Amino acid sequence: MSMINFRFCAPTRYIFGVDAQLGVGEAIASLGKRRVLLHYGGQSAQKSGLLGEVTGKLKEAGLDVVELGGVQPNPRDTLIDEGIAICRERDVDFILAVGGGSVIDSAKAIAIGVPYEGDFWDFYTGQAAPSAALPVGVVLTLPATGSEGSSRSVVTKEEGLLKRRCASDLIRPAIAWLNPTLTYTLPPYQTACGATDILSHVIERYFTPTEGVSLTDRLCEAVMLDVIQNAPIALAQPTDYDARANLMWAGTLAHNDVVGLGRMGDWGSHSIEHELSALYDVAHGAGLAVILPAWMRYQLDCDVMRFAQFAVRVWGCEMDFRNPKRTAIEGIDRMEAWFRSIGMPTTFAEIGAKEEDIPLLASKVDMDDAKGLGFFRPLSRKDIEAVYRLACNRDRDVC
Amino acid sequence: MSMINFRFCAPTRYIFGVDAQLGVGEAIASLGKRRVLLHYGGQSAQKSGLLGEVTGKLKEAGLDVVELGGVQPNPRDTLIDEGIAICRERDVDFILAVGGGSVIDSAKAIAIGVPYEGDFWDFYTGQAAPSAALPVGVVLTLPATGSEGSSRSVVTKEEGLLKRRCASDLIRPAIAWLNPTLTYTLPPYQTACGATDILSHVIERYFTPTEGVSLTDRLCEAVMLDVIQNAPIALAQPTDYDARANLMWAGTLAHNDVVGLGRMGDWGSHSIEHELSALYDVAHGAGLAVILPAWMRYQLDCDVMRFAQFAVRVWGCEMDFRNPKRTAIEGIDRMEAWFRSIGMPTTFAEIGAKEEDIPLLASKVDMDDAKGLGFFRPLSRKDIEAVYRLACNRDRDVC
Repeated sequence: MSMINFRFCAPTRYIFGVDAQLGVGEAIASLGKRRVLLHYGGQSAQKSGLLGEVTGKLKEAGLDVVELGGVQPNPRDTLIDEGIAICRERDVDFILAVGGGSVIDSAKAIAIGVPYEGDFWDFYTGQAAPSAALPVGVVLTLPATGSEGSSRSVVTKEEGLLKRRCASDLIRPAIAWLNPTLTYTLPPYQTACGATDILSHVIERYFTPTEGVSLTDRLCEAVMLDVIQNAPIALAQPTDYDARANLMWAGTLAHNDVVGLGRMGDWGSHSIEHELSALYDVAHGAGLAVILPAWMRYQLDCDVMRFAQFAVRVWGCEMDFRNPKRTAIEGIDRMEAWFRSIGMPTTFAEIGAKEEDIPLLASKVDMDDAKGLGFFRPLSRKDIEAVYRLACNRDRDVC
Repeated sequence: MSMINFRFCAPTRYIFGVDAQLGVGEAIASLGKRRVLLHYGGQSAQKSGLLGEVTGKLKEAGLDVVELGGVQPNPRDTLIDEGIAICRERDVDFILAVGGGSVIDSAKAIAIGVPYEGDFWDFYTGQAAPSAALPVGVVLTLPATGSEGSSRSVVTKEEGLLKRRCASDLIRPAIAWLNPTLTYTLPPYQTACGATDILSHVIERYFTPTEGVSLTDRLCEAVMLDVIQNAPIALAQPTDYDARANLMWAGTLAHNDVVGLGRMGDWGSHSIEHELSALYDVAHGAGLAVILPAWMRYQLDCDVMRFAQFAVRVWGCEMDFRNPKRTAIEGIDRMEAWFRSIGMPTTFAEIGAKEEDIPLLASKVDMDDAKGLGFFRPLSRKDIEAVYRLACNRDRDVC
């Protein structure tokens, strides 16, 4: 299958660099907007003074500000409903998310919920598609999900803890202020989880059944190589501007789809990980570090040469021309070692997951059983159990 | 100097793939537009049937169509003035360029000229900045200039043959239809000139004085590697879809600035080449193939390690750790050999340029003598003469 026809429009206005967020008020006012919902999470943005600073700039520009904080990791429908009600009542015309992926995804849900007569959840179950949205702005504090430039949003229904996603170009943020210095104070674990998430967004696109996509292969490799280089620097020296800046921009490019155009991504690992996050309350990035090596080992034989390319171009392995599979495995080994080097778990035991839960985990994965999970090589529930089992055992070489 | 703060917004809607252009009418009508100026060049679009097909689709969608053909390479102000007059008279609300860079750049000039009371040329001399523009659409027939996604336009004033550029986000095309199969019938020389132009847009950004821009370095390398791989395939097998598709998309990414964000580009080679095109009527891409190796050899000592990185990562040279300069030179040699392999000239003699014209050429280069030309290492007119001289001699090794 040759390169796939595609449509692409990524109109987000990026304002990147030191003090970027100081222009929030002016920029929103220049769009002709008047009433802003300031959406955020917990205390860190408050404590750091960022929230106060942003509020000040909004008010200086003559904007009305309504605050809605308290977004949790895995943002909940209940707070989104509250946000929609506030926006309608106060006639809000711009939503400003200050935070990471959860805050942004919550803001996106509010943005499409406000002009919609039904329940916003319809957009997440696929029962309806958004046809209008309030504009969303983002002051990013955590490079990870890429939501600041993406057309995606993932939210959780409190009842039953159902996690569902919505994709629409209407929810690409209108403006994103990216100031790398805001990430200097991130805890190392969050920096590492973020880097893993960024890498995973590229990996999901890299392992494709589509042939003839050499340019996007190269672009994927470019982003991966840079994350692999800069994440350890950011961990060793949290105030290294260039490491933080490259990592932040990599997070955006990894998921605004410029590295995935014209090719089918896989996305199986994300679904498989999701059940770990749900059952054990483990961070998404950490769960991915456990699942990705296992998924790769399980899928290896389906396209050894693609894994060898990954090993050589991304992980600097020497190609074994007599035994490409050995090279392919070495690449996965190096990736797993890299995850460990940045403090990520790579086994069930490290995240408190249990082997006996595997049938339950596999049964819960959200998939169409007839089609299988993922597009690289679709997996059955039996395959998914096997992937979990590979993630469970330390000695997981499948050769 | 660390990564530079940047602002970036690239809202062009891309419709990429087989038969992409069939949707022109519907897409323009859906924007609420009614009267289209169909702008094109010479006979090739007419002969191939493309122009008729596009016109048919526009009319099917109920759009009024006014035609203005005859755009020349190095598009002229006189035709642009004519286009502006037509648009005003006929109340045109959308300009559709069918062709390559010249047609697109001409369309962009018309687009900013229509709502402006003064002479559109003011935008190209820097005397005024555009504040409004008609939307421009593009059906691309030649991957080269990247104008289908860029914020730039270069046009020529007939009187005195002054070639000047304008840069504004207002002239980024609204929609670009990119159908790689339309490039199957390009003459090999045009394909090669286009590939060289694409490569040059990345090279101008790659050779930067900015430090700490590892991600954009990698992205530049990704695009260059892919052009180097696919251009020879497209030449050997003109109907190879994937080669044509990757080359076409590389042309867009090379110049919409995604590979140049946060870094200072050089752009000296473009100005030095421009005088060759002007004096000897040589194609821009061919002139670049002559100038780039010479510019590199002249600039080599200013940052040997950057040239070595270029040699190793882009041209696959083995790093000589004892003598990085040898590696750096090998990279330039390989680039020059690659240009020759795709049928490009690399010396003055091959394009009919004369050594005795060098003082004249150097004196004409459009530059601020106080600042020098380019940003990697600014060149004086004496330096520029030396670059021309290196392009003149076959035996041009400067070591």
